[in-house]
Amino acid sequence: MRLLEQRILEEGQYIGNGILKVDSFINHQVDPYLMNEAGKEFAKLFMNISASKILTAEISGIAPAVSAGLHLGIPVVFARKHKPITMPDQVLLTLSPSHTKGRTVELIVSPEYLGAGERVLIIDDFLATGKTIEGLIRLAQIAGAEVVGVGALIEKTFEEGRDHLESMGIHVESLARIESMSEKGIVFHKS
Amino acid sequence: MRLLEQRILEEGQYIGNGILKVDSFINHQVDPYLMNEAGKEFAKLFMNISASKILTAEISGIAPAVSAGLHLGIPVVFARKHKPITMPDQVLLTLSPSHTKGRTVELIVSPEYLGAGERVLIIDDFLATGKTIEGLIRLAQIAGAEVVGVGALIEKTFEEGRDHLESMGIHVESLARIESMSEKGIVFHKS
Repeated sequence: MRLLEQRILEEGQYIGNGILKVDSFINHQVDPYLMNEAGKEFAKLFMNISASKILTAEISGIAPAVSAGLHLGIPVVFARKHKPITMPDQVLLTLSPSHTKGRTVELIVSPEYLGAGERVLIIDDFLATGKTIEGLIRLAQIAGAEVVGVGALIEKTFEEGRDHLESMGIHVESLARIESMSEKGIVFHKS
Repeated sequence: MRLLEQRILEEGQYIGNGILKVDSFINHQVDPYLMNEAGKEFAKLFMNISASKILTAEISGIAPAVSAGLHLGIPVVFARKHKPITMPDQVLLTLSPSHTKGRTVELIVSPEYLGAGERVLIIDDFLATGKTIEGLIRLAQIAGAEVVGVGALIEKTFEEGRDHLESMGIHVESLARIESMSEKGIVFHKS
């Protein structure tokens, strides 16, 4: 998606340790127009997978997931990292290592909103090693749901998260694929 | 907003202690269509305040804020509750008591995305006592920005958060105003 690639080139900052800072349009400040365009693009890419629900992880996955849900006409569930008091005692929970947090986080979904028979599309801001997305896949599996697609705004292809997802037979799409990044600049994967 | 009131009557659950559970369409599962309609409604209500930026708090404020930002054509900043490693060392930070968490949380914004001269519209899921929104107002004030409006999806009028905001001269709007709730049901404020 050219609009997203351009924005990454203009405003993305490589801050070392494999981390791309995109806080000016995704992770802290959000560009609603860009998110809406991304949602349309996800809807186009996943039009034929008959997803019944989108699953994402708080926090930065919410904006692209809700945009995609709007254009696909399906609800979104965001996995919580802390169990709120409104959630029942019995929950679906998995642990996931967070690269940017440097520790393990919990991903929690209420069985009220993720159940057997659902066809789940996972949407997140980044696809890097794929650890968070694998956590979401485990949650869907515990619920008895089927994961039919994974979409990310930005993929770091050099962290190879896609390989494992595709080996599970999952349809993977990302809107900007970064092949390498360093102080010298960002190189996109030529598709 | 009739669509939201209907949804609250159909799916909202009073779980005691002044807490309304709306996890099936706002706080855990999100209805993207409803959020988009809410965004349109906020855009209509705040059309004339010349806001330059929306400020919200993670997590549940993000979906309505991004929808409002789309329809108003302005960016959204969401205050973080934990400082991510992409944020500079010097941040805008305030403390806010959380009723549903039973403890004080931090609200953190990077000065990169909230500065002097901004006209800020605050959007959040709930307006109850107004403590979270007052925290966001303090952040805007530290940044030298002006708060020109506050919009909430659901207001609990009996917690009187609106009074304090209006006494500060702020334009307050909410899309569903709950006057009372109990095991017997939910009563909306007649406007």
